[in-house]
Amino acid sequence: MNKVTGRSMLLAILVSACGAAGPATADGTRARELGIPFAGEPGALNAITDVAGVEVGQVTLIRGDGELLVGKGPVRTGVTVVHPRGKDSTTGVFGGWFTLNASGEMTGTTWLQERGLIEGPIAITNTHSVGVVRDAAVEWMVGKGWSADWHAPVVAETYDGGLNDINGFHVTSAHALQAMSSAASGAIAEGAVGGGTGMVCNGFKGGIGTASRRFEVGGRKYTIGVLVQCNYNWDGDDLRLGGRRVDHLLPVGEHCFTDRSIERHNDWYPYCGDAGARSVSMNSRDGSIIVIIATDAPLLPHQLARVAKRPSLALGRLGAVSTAGSGDIFVAFSTANAGRVDESNHAEVSVFPNYALTTVFTAAVQATEEAIVNAMTAAETVIGASGFRVEEMPEDEVRAVFRRSGD
Amino acid sequence: MNKVTGRSMLLAILVSACGAAGPATADGTRARELGIPFAGEPGALNAITDVAGVEVGQVTLIRGDGELLVGKGPVRTGVTVVHPRGKDSTTGVFGGWFTLNASGEMTGTTWLQERGLIEGPIAITNTHSVGVVRDAAVEWMVGKGWSADWHAPVVAETYDGGLNDINGFHVTSAHALQAMSSAASGAIAEGAVGGGTGMVCNGFKGGIGTASRRFEVGGRKYTIGVLVQCNYNWDGDDLRLGGRRVDHLLPVGEHCFTDRSIERHNDWYPYCGDAGARSVSMNSRDGSIIVIIATDAPLLPHQLARVAKRPSLALGRLGAVSTAGSGDIFVAFSTANAGRVDESNHAEVSVFPNYALTTVFTAAVQATEEAIVNAMTAAETVIGASGFRVEEMPEDEVRAVFRRSGD
Amino acid sequence: MNKVTGRSMLLAILVSACGAAGPATADGTRARELGIPFAGEPGALNAITDVAGVEVGQVTLIRGDGELLVGKGPVRTGVTVVHPRGKDSTTGVFGGWFTLNASGEMTGTTWLQERGLIEGPIAITNTHSVGVVRDAAVEWMVGKGWSADWHAPVVAETYDGGLNDINGFHVTSAHALQAMSSAASGAIAEGAVGGGTGMVCNGFKGGIGTASRRFEVGGRKYTIGVLVQCNYNWDGDDLRLGGRRVDHLLPVGEHCFTDRSIERHNDWYPYCGDAGARSVSMNSRDGSIIVIIATDAPLLPHQLARVAKRPSLALGRLGAVSTAGSGDIFVAFSTANAGRVDESNHAEVSVFPNYALTTVFTAAVQATEEAIVNAMTAAETVIGASGFRVEEMPEDEVRAVFRRSGD
Amino acid sequence: MNKVTGRSMLLAILVSACGAAGPATADGTRARELGIPFAGEPGALNAITDVAGVEVGQVTLIRGDGELLVGKGPVRTGVTVVHPRGKDSTTGVFGGWFTLNASGEMTGTTWLQERGLIEGPIAITNTHSVGVVRDAAVEWMVGKGWSADWHAPVVAETYDGGLNDINGFHVTSAHALQAMSSAASGAIAEGAVGGGTGMVCNGFKGGIGTASRRFEVGGRKYTIGVLVQCNYNWDGDDLRLGGRRVDHLLPVGEHCFTDRSIERHNDWYPYCGDAGARSVSMNSRDGSIIVIIATDAPLLPHQLARVAKRPSLALGRLGAVSTAGSGDIFVAFSTANAGRVDESNHAEVSVFPNYALTTVFTAAVQATEEAIVNAMTAAETVIGASGFRVEEMPEDEVRAVFRRSGD
Repeated sequence: MNKVTGRSMLLAILVSACGAAGPATADGTRARELGIPFAGEPGALNAITDVAGVEVGQVTLIRGDGELLVGKGPVRTGVTVVHPRGKDSTTGVFGGWFTLNASGEMTGTTWLQERGLIEGPIAITNTHSVGVVRDAAVEWMVGKGWSADWHAPVVAETYDGGLNDINGFHVTSAHALQAMSSAASGAIAEGAVGGGTGMVCNGFKGGIGTASRRFEVGGRKYTIGVLVQCNYNWDGDDLRLGGRRVDHLLPVGEHCFTDRSIERHNDWYPYCGDAGARSVSMNSRDGSIIVIIATDAPLLPHQLARVAKRPSLALGRLGAVSTAGSGDIFVAFSTANAGRVDESNHAEVSVFPNYALTTVFTAAVQATEEAIVNAMTAAETVIGASGFRVEEMPEDEVRAVFRRSGD
Repeated sequence: MNKVTGRSMLLAILVSACGAAGPATADGTRARELGIPFAGEPGALNAITDVAGVEVGQVTLIRGDGELLVGKGPVRTGVTVVHPRGKDSTTGVFGGWFTLNASGEMTGTTWLQERGLIEGPIAITNTHSVGVVRDAAVEWMVGKGWSADWHAPVVAETYDGGLNDINGFHVTSAHALQAMSSAASGAIAEGAVGGGTGMVCNGFKGGIGTASRRFEVGGRKYTIGVLVQCNYNWDGDDLRLGGRRVDHLLPVGEHCFTDRSIERHNDWYPYCGDAGARSVSMNSRDGSIIVIIATDAPLLPHQLARVAKRPSLALGRLGAVSTAGSGDIFVAFSTANAGRVDESNHAEVSVFPNYALTTVFTAAVQATEEAIVNAMTAAETVIGASGFRVEEMPEDEVRAVFRRSGD
Repeated sequence: MNKVTGRSMLLAILVSACGAAGPATADGTRARELGIPFAGEPGALNAITDVAGVEVGQVTLIRGDGELLVGKGPVRTGVTVVHPRGKDSTTGVFGGWFTLNASGEMTGTTWLQERGLIEGPIAITNTHSVGVVRDAAVEWMVGKGWSADWHAPVVAETYDGGLNDINGFHVTSAHALQAMSSAASGAIAEGAVGGGTGMVCNGFKGGIGTASRRFEVGGRKYTIGVLVQCNYNWDGDDLRLGGRRVDHLLPVGEHCFTDRSIERHNDWYPYCGDAGARSVSMNSRDGSIIVIIATDAPLLPHQLARVAKRPSLALGRLGAVSTAGSGDIFVAFSTANAGRVDESNHAEVSVFPNYALTTVFTAAVQATEEAIVNAMTAAETVIGASGFRVEEMPEDEVRAVFRRSGD
Repeated sequence: MNKVTGRSMLLAILVSACGAAGPATADGTRARELGIPFAGEPGALNAITDVAGVEVGQVTLIRGDGELLVGKGPVRTGVTVVHPRGKDSTTGVFGGWFTLNASGEMTGTTWLQERGLIEGPIAITNTHSVGVVRDAAVEWMVGKGWSADWHAPVVAETYDGGLNDINGFHVTSAHALQAMSSAASGAIAEGAVGGGTGMVCNGFKGGIGTASRRFEVGGRKYTIGVLVQCNYNWDGDDLRLGGRRVDHLLPVGEHCFTDRSIERHNDWYPYCGDAGARSVSMNSRDGSIIVIIATDAPLLPHQLARVAKRPSLALGRLGAVSTAGSGDIFVAFSTANAGRVDESNHAEVSVFPNYALTTVFTAAVQATEEAIVNAMTAAETVIGASGFRVEEMPEDEVRAVFRRSGD
């Protein structure tokens, strides 16, 4: 899993819909395989798709190599889409959202907060392609026959301008629609795929990660699933995995440029051939993380807004401080009450007991914590714009830490 | 109705529980009696108690006369309590809240927003007595056997420091408990009673006002009821009643001190004997308004939060700008889903259709608009601390405006 | 001013940048010309551009006629852009926002709320073109050299799907960039222009409106300017102008289809040739209003958030209830502290006194009230998709009301 | 430090003002003494009082023993007060607040959010005494001559109904005023003192804790200080200290009743004499935590609101999920801009650079993490109402964990 996603591969134009890919473990190492401990009972796939009905589609754009030419590339970006009730549904879900640090964008949130409903797909892409994906989601909804006259879909972003030609606006409406139409249930590709293609997480190559938890309340069994696009970065002195501080054990921030001749070198990062490359820490501490939480427990909108706060605690477990420039925005929805979220008629809906929400919160924190680490362990090293290279997490060293600790 | 609440009356210590009083019209003129037009269909009492189950209790404290001596008086204050399901219920209601301009206090709002429930009585008093009333509400709930181990009741305030010895802290726990225990359904005394005893509304003597509207959605009949404690004041150039600008027609702000010898005269208000008294406008434009909205329509918490925004529009109709120092805080609750707001078990609850919320909003705006004007028309002139005198709205002049306009 | 924007004109493809147009009164009747009374002292242009530095650009798209063919037209839409410090500035302004009823979209609000800054242009367009305009604003900012690596501009919308082929996505990035680059100070075209081209306001043809107020605090003179895109509709029983109820005096909702042969007739609206056309009220009560407030008073972000609530009160003055499907979203910014809103270094900034905010609030309410009415009086009758016809406000009848009342 | 706060001591009525006590280490073991690692550079006292001007006062109420008789005792409660600019100041500070899970009360927050100012003392007490302390704070402000006519102080709570006769309402206005008047700079007593007297934190005896961090931005040195009243409890499967999971190593929840004959035994806790006592975990997972953050960095209100979110991440570091019944409410203020927070006149204020906020956030997370652990390590075992016994954290076992790990 430690092979570099190198130059030869990058020569091809790769646009793949990954939603229906094989088991997630085929695409990247999962955190549990490295011995990192997590609490709670995961679902069958340990993925957001363990929540029945949820479908995920991804389009990965990898194209070009070498020096950055705005509008030309290199391109390292994509789109990841979550359909709460599957791509063929035209009915919404109760939802809620929260932002821990809002240096970012998630469209559709004012409407979501107002009526507690999410309609249409939820999509994640790069920062400067939110608009095109948002309008594509509108187009998707019109085409599918969603009943409202107008739409305000939920589209979020993180910034991939280190590896990707973000100002080249390479994501098109067609790419977004392809991600929406190719969505499927089943395992989800993690790491440098879809919206996560160009992302950096805690100093390592990051991107898409997912996990799930099962829980039981009042004799009823439920699942919570989480999908993250992880691009946030820590403040340099505190990284924790599996309940351990690992900031002194793990090398971090060994990003460098692969070609001394490329002009885009800057003050932050060295030429990879320099002896000192490994010792230079990543200076851009910001970044962002988008978290999508799905559950089949019958939560009302105001309860989902509470769940949407819980990724904050998962980030805390990993040592994050939610930096000043980080867009840490979280959204939660419930697939329960299908066919009963009726905006035109009186309806009866199931409600989850407030006193049992701690169980949901715990599952949400646990699944988010693991999904973030999965994004880090799944991703492989990527070389992008102007030869900028972001290293993957060193798996052997991580294994060693947890073998040694006996945790 | 134009008699001054004068000195002789004030010599008595008057502590009355007014919740079970006779028809509201017996206590003060209602706005419709003056010919002011209002849209919509009111309930039988045109009061918050038209919503089945709602009970209101009030304790009015009027004591002393003459110069203000902190801790002695004069006292012009009180407590008004609304029990959403009646005083003997120990089950909560779904609720929501909003603040248009938060220069004030409403306790319990963070807990309300978190779980969408109001438990216990909702009380309104003067600004500096919120604490004692709040703890009394806790004591009430413990005594009644509300099931939770702890309580965070909703208690709000407006400022009566012009007429009342507010820093004398004259409201006691016993007064608050009396308001709670004396609550009843039926007509509600309006004007200078309960928490509204010392309040000023749009430059005139204000206080408690109430109104209601009936509406029908999907063949089901519902009621919305509003109770206000009106103490807000306009910015001096715009007062509107019944859809008319009346700022140039009505004399405003002729507050004055009744005794030249009293030291507390200040720069704002003259001695009443001065010829210029009538021409001096009330300078203290601030103040506050608390609005409590009740309905039997089955609204969820996030829907009630939307309803709680609507008093903003009623204030707009009356020409308000929600001044910088005004505590304009609104709370809404639904008495529906009785016995089904279960925090320990799964439950089924009725939900109101989003698309029909406009009907609820309209009723809420209409009832709030009328409740505010009722507070103004019901109140009689009051002379309070240091002989400070706040005039009631001049009823004959108002009648003339609306007779003349033919509206 | 009562001429219909008819068929022959619509045959031309009209893409005009209207920012630098002549005096606003040349483009449409302003409310004051009809005798409608407003309080407060307007600026020289009675427009948002009275705030020094503010520039406005508009692109109006009117193309095609006859039956709606999605993707073909007819097109009745556009883009309106406000540059807080002018189009050539690359420094942000302190800002705040609020939503009264969030059935709509305004991008960039989470980031605005987080750091209290607006960077880049503020744009308004139709609901389904928010994305393309948003990405165009990003492109604009990259091109102009705004210093941040990424951008989250503020782009809002209202729905023009009655008159316009909204699902044809006719607004392009080029249109948005044209609106941005053509922006200018000076008078602003009102009514059916720019983003307001296809909008309906209180049952009449609406769109863009603007107004301003001067005020003085502590011996310093300030201006507040407002620009609205008015597309909201009332609940059918209450419309107020100039502090008067006019719902019974003014005909409303006489929208109809001009050609009986067109298939898109629906249950709401009749064929214009029918005798009953005038008596059919507009049934689609929803809609939306975007309000942009500019001031040169040195307000901090949390103070601007307070100002951003005030359009609620202006809407109340006009009889609105902010219907369930209305996207009533407001944003406010201050052009003060130019060059001192420094994100990288310590800075000293001017702060406006809290106690004087009432003056700002009053000006904001007054200017918003007038801007909305200006949008209604300036707009002319428009015939759009499938011959759908939205009548302008009948100016003579309005004049008669205010001449008669003597208000 | 492991001695039980036992019966003989409890026979005395102990009302002590602890603000001016000796070094905090004299009152309880601090976390660093046990070898628990923390990042960042603490101030001289590692306390909130490292922020110049901040004064803290505490009143501890310990009275009675044996069976609970409501109104009689036993009493294990108190009040902790923070004066942002010292007890003799009558000028406010910029402030902001946040609630992660709002199962609790903090008064004054709507007013704080509206204008970004905190005036008067900030106080913490038990849940059912918020009112009396709040009114006492009003009385304090009136007495001290704070200039406003009315006050809405910030008073918060956590629930001590396990150890304390909370429904006996034993905190009086005099106690609260004593805490306010006895406040001082210098070291702060931690653990079972003041408002924290009856609190339980992560299953151990908790209460008051404090810590601080120094940081430097743009060549200027600043301090952030934190004081917590820690009463929150985890969900049973995850406790982390110093970046380590310690849930399997540390015994937790060995609470029991000391006297089999007392009737108040319940299903959750056993008689202490039972062999199984140690193995019974505390079942009441809820609780709450109030966090007060002070800094001398010149943050504006919207920046302080961002800082106020950061305790969420400190709680995450400790394994918390912020349970459904937890009142996790945080408030932050800045002592900078003294004399320049002028509500009546224009003023110039210093502003901290947004891009450097990460440094503040990191310090806030670090100090909150340590303050919570200090609350746990400082507290000694307490026996309270009906002989209910809450164990202190076992110091030797904690020392062993961190000695063994070598972290």
